[in-house]
Amino acid sequence: MFTTNLLIVLIGALLGRILSKKLKQPSILGELILGMIIGNIGIITLTETMKDIADIGILFLLFSAGLAINFEEFKRLGKSSSVVAFSGVVLPFLLGYFITILFGFSKLIAVFVGVSLIATSVGVKTEILSELKMIETRLGTLIMGAAVIDDVIAIIAVGIVASIATSGSIPVKRVLLTIFLSAIFLIVSLTLVIKLFKKFSEKFTFKMASIEDILLFGVIISLTFGVTAENIGLSIITGAFIAGLILGQTYFARVLFEHVSLFGESLFIPIFFVTMGMQFNIYTFKSVGFFAVILILVAIIGKIVGCGLGAKISKFTSKESFAVGVAMIPRAGVELVLIKLGLDYGIISSDIASVILCMVIVTTLITPPFLSSVLKGLKLRR
Amino acid sequence: MFTTNLLIVLIGALLGRILSKKLKQPSILGELILGMIIGNIGIITLTETMKDIADIGILFLLFSAGLAINFEEFKRLGKSSSVVAFSGVVLPFLLGYFITILFGFSKLIAVFVGVSLIATSVGVKTEILSELKMIETRLGTLIMGAAVIDDVIAIIAVGIVASIATSGSIPVKRVLLTIFLSAIFLIVSLTLVIKLFKKFSEKFTFKMASIEDILLFGVIISLTFGVTAENIGLSIITGAFIAGLILGQTYFARVLFEHVSLFGESLFIPIFFVTMGMQFNIYTFKSVGFFAVILILVAIIGKIVGCGLGAKISKFTSKESFAVGVAMIPRAGVELVLIKLGLDYGIISSDIASVILCMVIVTTLITPPFLSSVLKGLKLRR
Repeated sequence: MFTTNLLIVLIGALLGRILSKKLKQPSILGELILGMIIGNIGIITLTETMKDIADIGILFLLFSAGLAINFEEFKRLGKSSSVVAFSGVVLPFLLGYFITILFGFSKLIAVFVGVSLIATSVGVKTEILSELKMIETRLGTLIMGAAVIDDVIAIIAVGIVASIATSGSIPVKRVLLTIFLSAIFLIVSLTLVIKLFKKFSEKFTFKMASIEDILLFGVIISLTFGVTAENIGLSIITGAFIAGLILGQTYFARVLFEHVSLFGESLFIPIFFVTMGMQFNIYTFKSVGFFAVILILVAIIGKIVGCGLGAKISKFTSKESFAVGVAMIPRAGVELVLIKLGLDYGIISSDIASVILCMVIVTTLITPPFLSSVLKGLKLRR
Repeated sequence: MFTTNLLIVLIGALLGRILSKKLKQPSILGELILGMIIGNIGIITLTETMKDIADIGILFLLFSAGLAINFEEFKRLGKSSSVVAFSGVVLPFLLGYFITILFGFSKLIAVFVGVSLIATSVGVKTEILSELKMIETRLGTLIMGAAVIDDVIAIIAVGIVASIATSGSIPVKRVLLTIFLSAIFLIVSLTLVIKLFKKFSEKFTFKMASIEDILLFGVIISLTFGVTAENIGLSIITGAFIAGLILGQTYFARVLFEHVSLFGESLFIPIFFVTMGMQFNIYTFKSVGFFAVILILVAIIGKIVGCGLGAKISKFTSKESFAVGVAMIPRAGVELVLIKLGLDYGIISSDIASVILCMVIVTTLITPPFLSSVLKGLKLRR
């Protein structure tokens, strides 16, 4: 049963890539579309196993992104990344909140909708940056840094909303604890642990180890950081990215990067995007009204203006700042947790849930062609 | 949860490999032992997802074995492989049957025990041949061919036993159908399909395709053949092996082989062997008596003498014939189906089930060091 499901998902991935190549679009677009087709005509349903394997895909993607990035540059851009992340969170939240109020909904619903706009999908932008080999550029590093900080902010915001939904109050203690643990994790990983690994990799001669052993070791480290991040409350992929940054400082970083990205791209990552597409239910669009259209526009403009402004303040060119904003458009992940929460506690109706889902689907689907054309333009200019 | 389980299995695999390197043994031995430790101290239990991922591991292993083999040699050795397989099935069955009768059990139980001795574990021998880079030798090709034929025979034998257990009669029609379908599958795959693929790969210029696309395509083909084989009643890994033979004839065989085996060895294949070890319950040995010791000896001698004789008849040297026999020792897979069947229909007691399980564990664990030393001796001589 599982093997048949896997076979269908992989055939979808291959057809999606061929479609993308014909349309001269990034491969992720075709994978998402084929996933939508497979999911909506209902050939197969998404099993737990397939979701677990898809999780390895996103883990591989972020791990290889971390490996590709120049850590010194990442540190240098830390402040700029924070500015981009914060301005890209505040503006979409405020826009979402006030638009919802304008449409006559309650303040609580408005907070929900606002929070649903703040997170960004790390997977989509990472894949496109990887395909264009722009992860390791200054712009790619800025975007990845902002995405990591966005993950921290989103997780805290969702925690707050969840608590308001269940107990009606803001859990100050828990919020502070999450901030504290996240900070400790990021700081310890990127100062102490990174130095230890560098020393370790110089001392022990890994030259004796086969590529198989190095790869196995790399996957173990990325899972260790992923699981640790998950236990703190961050997402597993943020942990994998940090693991990539750390191992990126060792001398076997090159070997690891090449193989992790090759293996990821030939199996796990396509599975991730096809199954992501499978979760997009097109019937969601049936009851879509004017509010959905406005919310989608707000979602797009919020990130382009918010993050773009942040990048501009950090002295990136106007075209680069625009690209940063576009990279942040896709949403996916935290929104689904929010929707479930809102429905479970009866705070939002299924209409609002559908509207948020539409926003997730549309922003995810428009980003690949949009971002890849913007980035190609930048690359050409250089 | 899944990621934590995966992490523990992978750490087990890495420690197992380090252990094997220290002991100068094939890596599979350490992986099996670490798996036994993890499984028996009960840190984690084996989930469905992990089993599914392990199945991809054995699929990758057999697919890469098929890719490595010289097809012309495989055909030339077809008759010899059949002789080895048949003599390696008849002798263990007869020995098992009569020993069981001698110990005072019924004829039905004797048939069960006899059948439990006929199958061979493809995974163990393939991994050791791969590690020593002997898959593509004449000897390796003979062993792989015999293993494929053994799979067909075992599946038919188990079908017969299952039918005797449930209805008391031999299902002549179904047996003939299985033989017919297996023959059609093997013949069509290895004549018509193999030629089609060769033509296809020459015509369409795959040079444009990236390694990622070729790998994805390869995995799709191996799964297609695996699922087809499974539907006929053969095992999925036999299908994957046939797919490897077929794609081994295309000009991208080399690229595919290198990456499938590298990819497999660094993630999926270690997972397969660690989880295999996890299924070995050491408490099985608690109630082990004299019968188990004799059955283990019969299992070992039956394959060494039976298969060895077959190889000797086919004009292999005495040392080579001995190596063929040793390669066929490990059991695993079909036995577990048999045990479940026997217990479900009340044909065998849990004592007999334990005895068969002990035989599976011991034959699997002794083969890696045994076979690798025999093969190294042969290699040295050459």
